[in-house]
Amino acid sequence: MLNDRTLRDLRAIVGDDYVRSGPAQLIAYSYDATFQQAPPDAVALPRTTEQVAAVLRLANNASIPVIPRGAGTSLAGGTIPLTGGIVLSLTRMNTIKEIDLGNTCAVVEPGVVTAAFQAAVEKAGLFYPPDPASLNQSTLGGNVACNAGGPRGLKYGSTRDYVLGLTVALADGRVLRLGGKTIKNVSGYQLIQLFAASEGTLGVITGITLRLVPLPRHRSTAVAIFPKLDDAGDAVTAVLGSGVLPVTLELMDQLAINAVEDYLHMGLPRDAEALLLIEQDGNSQVAVQQDIETVAAACKETGASNVRVATSPEERELLWRARRAVSAAIGRRAPNKIGEDVVVPRSQVPEMIRRVRRIGVEHGFETPIFGHAGDGNLHPNFLFDRRKPGEMERLEKAAAAVFRAALELGGTLSGEHGIGTLKREFMEDALGPDTLGVMRAIKQALDPKGILNPGKKFPTGTTGEHSGFLTALPMLDSLTGEE
Amino acid sequence: MLNDRTLRDLRAIVGDDYVRSGPAQLIAYSYDATFQQAPPDAVALPRTTEQVAAVLRLANNASIPVIPRGAGTSLAGGTIPLTGGIVLSLTRMNTIKEIDLGNTCAVVEPGVVTAAFQAAVEKAGLFYPPDPASLNQSTLGGNVACNAGGPRGLKYGSTRDYVLGLTVALADGRVLRLGGKTIKNVSGYQLIQLFAASEGTLGVITGITLRLVPLPRHRSTAVAIFPKLDDAGDAVTAVLGSGVLPVTLELMDQLAINAVEDYLHMGLPRDAEALLLIEQDGNSQVAVQQDIETVAAACKETGASNVRVATSPEERELLWRARRAVSAAIGRRAPNKIGEDVVVPRSQVPEMIRRVRRIGVEHGFETPIFGHAGDGNLHPNFLFDRRKPGEMERLEKAAAAVFRAALELGGTLSGEHGIGTLKREFMEDALGPDTLGVMRAIKQALDPKGILNPGKKFPTGTTGEHSGFLTALPMLDSLTGEE
Repeated sequence: MLNDRTLRDLRAIVGDDYVRSGPAQLIAYSYDATFQQAPPDAVALPRTTEQVAAVLRLANNASIPVIPRGAGTSLAGGTIPLTGGIVLSLTRMNTIKEIDLGNTCAVVEPGVVTAAFQAAVEKAGLFYPPDPASLNQSTLGGNVACNAGGPRGLKYGSTRDYVLGLTVALADGRVLRLGGKTIKNVSGYQLIQLFAASEGTLGVITGITLRLVPLPRHRSTAVAIFPKLDDAGDAVTAVLGSGVLPVTLELMDQLAINAVEDYLHMGLPRDAEALLLIEQDGNSQVAVQQDIETVAAACKETGASNVRVATSPEERELLWRARRAVSAAIGRRAPNKIGEDVVVPRSQVPEMIRRVRRIGVEHGFETPIFGHAGDGNLHPNFLFDRRKPGEMERLEKAAAAVFRAALELGGTLSGEHGIGTLKREFMEDALGPDTLGVMRAIKQALDPKGILNPGKKFPTGTTGEHSGFLTALPMLDSLTGEE
Repeated sequence: MLNDRTLRDLRAIVGDDYVRSGPAQLIAYSYDATFQQAPPDAVALPRTTEQVAAVLRLANNASIPVIPRGAGTSLAGGTIPLTGGIVLSLTRMNTIKEIDLGNTCAVVEPGVVTAAFQAAVEKAGLFYPPDPASLNQSTLGGNVACNAGGPRGLKYGSTRDYVLGLTVALADGRVLRLGGKTIKNVSGYQLIQLFAASEGTLGVITGITLRLVPLPRHRSTAVAIFPKLDDAGDAVTAVLGSGVLPVTLELMDQLAINAVEDYLHMGLPRDAEALLLIEQDGNSQVAVQQDIETVAAACKETGASNVRVATSPEERELLWRARRAVSAAIGRRAPNKIGEDVVVPRSQVPEMIRRVRRIGVEHGFETPIFGHAGDGNLHPNFLFDRRKPGEMERLEKAAAAVFRAALELGGTLSGEHGIGTLKREFMEDALGPDTLGVMRAIKQALDPKGILNPGKKFPTGTTGEHSGFLTALPMLDSLTGEE
């Protein structure tokens, strides 16, 4: 609980209308896109960098936790106020300040919604590629803080590849202005990259300069059907070995295909073990078409029974509808689901899918898998019913087995969702004690009192790997999630 | 001076043959591609990560400076042993351990020469784009530590965009194994990016996993001649606004053109204020040709008097010869030269060139300029004769004025050469005290005794901005440099 003095100070900083502390108001900021829930003591909605800095100074002096929050679309528990404190909601800082055509970049506030930004940029004839599935809700500040990815990552990289400049308020209220409109910069340590993917544990992002690229004039999309899963894995290798780097190489396994078919009745082949959704873009229609034909040939040679290239924008839209519907389609199959975000070296994708399926069978879960096969970033989903006795405990064991499998295959815990609370206890397994020690030393150097987003990204050591790492978290009544 | 015990320990770690301590041997490791010289107390040439870690433990316990060194091609004084200590030469760790076609990546040791790596990768049908001008000598470890760039950076980014994994030995001998063959990874802080561009001040890179991309099948190169410098600046904006992102957009100003023409007698137009060298690549000859035609049209519309597209590989080679010869051609015009590496927002390139020229005239220097106009990264060169009384003092004033101009235009000190010793005193002006404070806190957290590459990247505060920041450095007899 915050004392009256602190609440008064908070109101003095951001204005009376922008501090929330009533119980109903606090509930709205108590959960994200996972199954967790814990209320903050107050919510502050600042409008400026200076207000953010002032809130941080106040909180730091009083050792009050501060949880930076965009749209709360985290799939890892990244914005849950585990130990109360002040939620710093950045949604009012939502101005696109400039789209600079001459320097092909944009200056934005952190609360700008990703899709709104993309639309504005494309209207200006430019392109901002990162496309997390939550883009209609998620904010650019959150995207940077989590280094959000998306299907286009194969060709275009992830959010941090587009950040040229960052304004960051540190825990003690100091404000760093890093980089700017320059494309290259080796003058200091690459601090922009350090704040990217730090999940709000090192500073609060209050301004972003994003690099933009030319908007490709043409796109082509194809879907390849694979009777055998291993062949789809070989196809990924063959496509990338063919000299073509597509925009996307998205995979859906048989369970995901069937879930979508149950939902949309598109005529997807239920007996196929996998499909790949492939997209290419470029300025030359001839070149894009040539690339898609090369990809189609590679898929056929590796065992695709059918490759269909969209011949109209409508057909292209239809193919994407299947991919976009997958999370909702899977969600219909059980009361609850949880989506993982493991990454393996690309060549290990088929083996990882086999292991996930085996883990699902062993622990009694349906485990549809989809994801960014070209990047080796898979989203195995566990379908479950948390009301069943023992279900959460079994889920914990299964999730732990998935993490272990990814690490054994040379992979890692998360490609784009972040660690948050859900994977924190596996960080030492993933990174080793020395790397974790360096992370802790950096955290200590930047946030010595540990006020910024406590309980995230670092293991607490209070739970064993296989018991409590999920069930000990504070739970919401209904479980949802989308990736 | 190292005591006998330390030398004996050093020999025990890396082997008798791989410790150098004779005066003639030390001289070989006392300079780089700048004008500075300071001998180390010993040189150790380790073969393994474990040896590197053991040398660091030894040095850290005894508080001996350690200067990691690749090929010593630094243009910023990055490897000068300012205060003696042990040069850790990584040139024996020069094995390409694996080129992994399935995961389109390679695992290398830090001492592999960049050009040798590129040749091996291209033989395997893949492509490693970063192309610093020193690539025939420079090593991949040095490239990562400085985040080396090159002409292809516009389309392909710089070295750090290709680093998937890094093995790093810390000052105290702990070894971090960061990342791996996964393309995406948000499990920890982006420490790989922190070590990139850290110039050996945070750790010693002993292993690198590099992302590779498909080798483009076609290339096309054009040169555009501009009677007016401003028009060349407008052309850069017009090209990037045309929807095409070329591989390179290299600029040479009139002085650079004339220096090359004096040297090579190629028939370059001496009265042109600027030329742009433009290259595009891709898998479709049609698309590449189409892009180059779009670029040519944009150049003509903005005032190019002539755009010549190479019609054969030989002609392409000829066009590149002019660009590659520019540093040597400039070097012939005066006993000494120093090349700066400032970056400005791309739209400020013409203004920056005008300011550099004015600074040159004011301080009495010829200042040919070339560089990566598409990235806003310019190499203004100062031609001088250090034997002339007062020349170095005037050079200092002129260089300081160039730094100030870049910062005033929203730019920065270095795009690819690094800070080293040459620009360190301007770091506070460039980054501000708070950002510098965060850098110092991170340095302190990772290297509390300050043994790693002391005197680099951070301002010493011992010299004023305008006096002594160059002249107080320990000097080599003859000045050279190439970028």
